[in-house]
Amino acid sequence: MTYRIPPRSGTAFALEKGQRLTVIDPEGEQVADLAAFSAADPREAISNGRTIDYASKLFFTTGDLIYSNRSSVMFEIVHDDVGRHDFLLTPCSAEMFRKLYGEDEPHRGCFGNLAAALEPYGIQPDQIPVAFNVFMNVPVDGKTGEIRVDPPLSKPGDTFTIEAKMDLIVGLTACSAGQSNNFTYKPIDYRIE
Amino acid sequence: MTYRIPPRSGTAFALEKGQRLTVIDPEGEQVADLAAFSAADPREAISNGRTIDYASKLFFTTGDLIYSNRSSVMFEIVHDDVGRHDFLLTPCSAEMFRKLYGEDEPHRGCFGNLAAALEPYGIQPDQIPVAFNVFMNVPVDGKTGEIRVDPPLSKPGDTFTIEAKMDLIVGLTACSAGQSNNFTYKPIDYRIE
Repeated sequence: MTYRIPPRSGTAFALEKGQRLTVIDPEGEQVADLAAFSAADPREAISNGRTIDYASKLFFTTGDLIYSNRSSVMFEIVHDDVGRHDFLLTPCSAEMFRKLYGEDEPHRGCFGNLAAALEPYGIQPDQIPVAFNVFMNVPVDGKTGEIRVDPPLSKPGDTFTIEAKMDLIVGLTACSAGQSNNFTYKPIDYRIE
Repeated sequence: MTYRIPPRSGTAFALEKGQRLTVIDPEGEQVADLAAFSAADPREAISNGRTIDYASKLFFTTGDLIYSNRSSVMFEIVHDDVGRHDFLLTPCSAEMFRKLYGEDEPHRGCFGNLAAALEPYGIQPDQIPVAFNVFMNVPVDGKTGEIRVDPPLSKPGDTFTIEAKMDLIVGLTACSAGQSNNFTYKPIDYRIE
């Protein structure tokens, strides 16, 4: 069964150890922010800092392990049609839209969508970490350190699959930030196997 | 008054809004992990993801602002003799020494030192974010995404100064990781003005 996340919204669900989550970009050029927490204790969450340290790299694809703040493996990337995702930037938020886009009445963004979806699991907004931003294309200039947010490289139907290495609570969005999605808001599909 | 943090140890202290903290590398090539929390509510902490997003860059120096997970400015970098620091990697920890260095009876690392120093302020280990790693030299290959940990560029007596933009609780270490400090463990000095 394939579920659909409408544009600029989000959801949360349990993903048991050994289950696989496939994130699908049905129309192409659409980012999905993915946050993951230990179901046993949601104070344990994915950590870009630990993951970058253990892998000695910034970009992750098939075969790579994503670690928690407690240095446990939370999931493995087991399939990836695209090969470019971001693990540097926090979910877009009302404050981000105010600061970077100059919007007066901003959308609550992926941050607000994740906070609402994760609240029933007892996860507070302050616990939302830097998400693993599936399909997000953030080139890095190694000399200057400058980053950009470019259109995703994903084409319609491209998929990205993870396998849970512990029981997880997962938050997942269809990203709400214009620049991240080539300025159109599209859905994200997913399935659990 | 200048305080000294002995090799492979850490401390924590209040830094009021408007006060300046100067971190000094007395012998050169020594990293200091700096974690900062809102004194009013320590669930608010420095965020590499927010800071990288707002600045559109990975490397920070004089004039740059460091943001919290709530998108507030926590501090400004007001002086920097070195110009190269890291905001990608989590504090070294016993688990990190086991995984990356293969140590059987590892030191508790900056993570353990920060956890112990911050415990009296009611800050739990899981709340320790990616630290701002003063003087840490982590080159990035923008094409492949590979990172390295090279010896710091700091010379004896080099300083790095921040000005608090809100009342803060600051954790500060003399980093315990061999590779980060050219394989000698040295002290870090600091003063508050």
